[in-house]
Amino acid sequence: MSVTGQMIETYPKDLGGVDRDKMRACIEACYECSQACTACADACLSEETVAELAKCIRTNLDCADQCDVTGRVLSRHTGYDANLTRSVLEACAQACKTCGDECERHAAHHEHCRVCAEACRRCEQACRELIAAL
Amino acid sequence: MSVTGQMIETYPKDLGGVDRDKMRACIEACYECSQACTACADACLSEETVAELAKCIRTNLDCADQCDVTGRVLSRHTGYDANLTRSVLEACAQACKTCGDECERHAAHHEHCRVCAEACRRCEQACRELIAAL
Amino acid sequence: MSVTGQMIETYPKDLGGVDRDKMRACIEACYECSQACTACADACLSEETVAELAKCIRTNLDCADQCDVTGRVLSRHTGYDANLTRSVLEACAQACKTCGDECERHAAHHEHCRVCAEACRRCEQACRELIAAL
Amino acid sequence: MSVTGQMIETYPKDLGGVDRDKMRACIEACYECSQACTACADACLSEETVAELAKCIRTNLDCADQCDVTGRVLSRHTGYDANLTRSVLEACAQACKTCGDECERHAAHHEHCRVCAEACRRCEQACRELIAAL
Repeated sequence: MSVTGQMIETYPKDLGGVDRDKMRACIEACYECSQACTACADACLSEETVAELAKCIRTNLDCADQCDVTGRVLSRHTGYDANLTRSVLEACAQACKTCGDECERHAAHHEHCRVCAEACRRCEQACRELIAAL
Repeated sequence: MSVTGQMIETYPKDLGGVDRDKMRACIEACYECSQACTACADACLSEETVAELAKCIRTNLDCADQCDVTGRVLSRHTGYDANLTRSVLEACAQACKTCGDECERHAAHHEHCRVCAEACRRCEQACRELIAAL
Repeated sequence: MSVTGQMIETYPKDLGGVDRDKMRACIEACYECSQACTACADACLSEETVAELAKCIRTNLDCADQCDVTGRVLSRHTGYDANLTRSVLEACAQACKTCGDECERHAAHHEHCRVCAEACRRCEQACRELIAAL
Repeated sequence: MSVTGQMIETYPKDLGGVDRDKMRACIEACYECSQACTACADACLSEETVAELAKCIRTNLDCADQCDVTGRVLSRHTGYDANLTRSVLEACAQACKTCGDECERHAAHHEHCRVCAEACRRCEQACRELIAAL
């Protein structure tokens, strides 16, 4: 079992009716996407065509930041507030959609954008599935 | 002029029709609230009644994280995407509302919760004013 | 290959003489430890003995934050600066040591502290191996 | 008094022998520098000469991240650990030095780099003064 899965299982109180698999999958997708976006921003920065990738870099940075926060919020269960969790997940799904769309435009030319776009799609999907299950 | 104000004024391209005063005020409110929430979580942790403050600490941590990201997203102007900015601001307004409500419940007993609740209210208000101006 | 591994392989320029396996392992350990520490702080917050876990919670929060930054710095290769990377890695190794020591003190009573202490030890070790390889 | 100052004054326990003015000044410098570096990375991204500013952008991002963490660590007083605080401050001073040096190289051509370099110098100085006072 992943460390994230172990941390969920060792939480000392009741987790309520939350779907643990969807929650774990979403946390892991957030951290994975945050890392991919951080690395993709940096890879874009080293491309000769960096001037054409400015929007991609900016969106990568936003998406990395919002995924990071979402992974943190979902890792906390104490004093759960559904409104806060839902709005953070919606911001994350939007950030992943915007970034996935932008990276996809460059995927044919830059492998790092292709890998990153896929991480964004998985994370957006995981956020939407968790929102539906809240 | 504050450093945040100077950074806005020295941005090399057109900022579009954005209200610079509202944007600067919102960025500053986000950083101020992020710091206050980080410090309030820690202050709660040192109270003898910490067990009764568990929800307050958790909400402080979420709010600090979301304010931090929102301050970063608003500090970027390149490749602006209105959908992303709006959803991040909405998550921040919600986090500040949830945290402000919770801190306010403890404001009569803990000065740090009173100061933090006020920072949350200012930041929520600044986010809502900026959303209205987008 | 993990997404982190794919992002390293698709970086468009030369990575210099860096040991890619050690770098990838360290990035992954940083994100894993950051998530574990965030979750452990929250799990401690729900324990009945939370007052005795105040130092553990605080150290968890610091360690999560420093691991997060270290994972980001290591995910960037453009404009590499050895002094900056080394000092960030040393701060991370220290944060993991402090947090691992503290979590270990509670490992016999709290499974989340045991899992988290192990993540801290792995991350500290990965940082030290990467420092030695710089 | 600033919100940061109020949060220090309302901390419920003894702060030990720490110099409160130096601590408050360092926290405020960290948040200010984090915001300036985030904005400077974005401003560089919009310059026509962005390809020549790649190292500056990368160092801005690292410095923003390390300043952010340092501001958080310094905002916590519960369960203080001198080794952890010192190593985080040293990483921050180094990040500010590297970033201040790089921004200064571009200060004559880009006002945002000039403003950001000054924020880096202030933050580096504040970190070094606090290290000396620990």
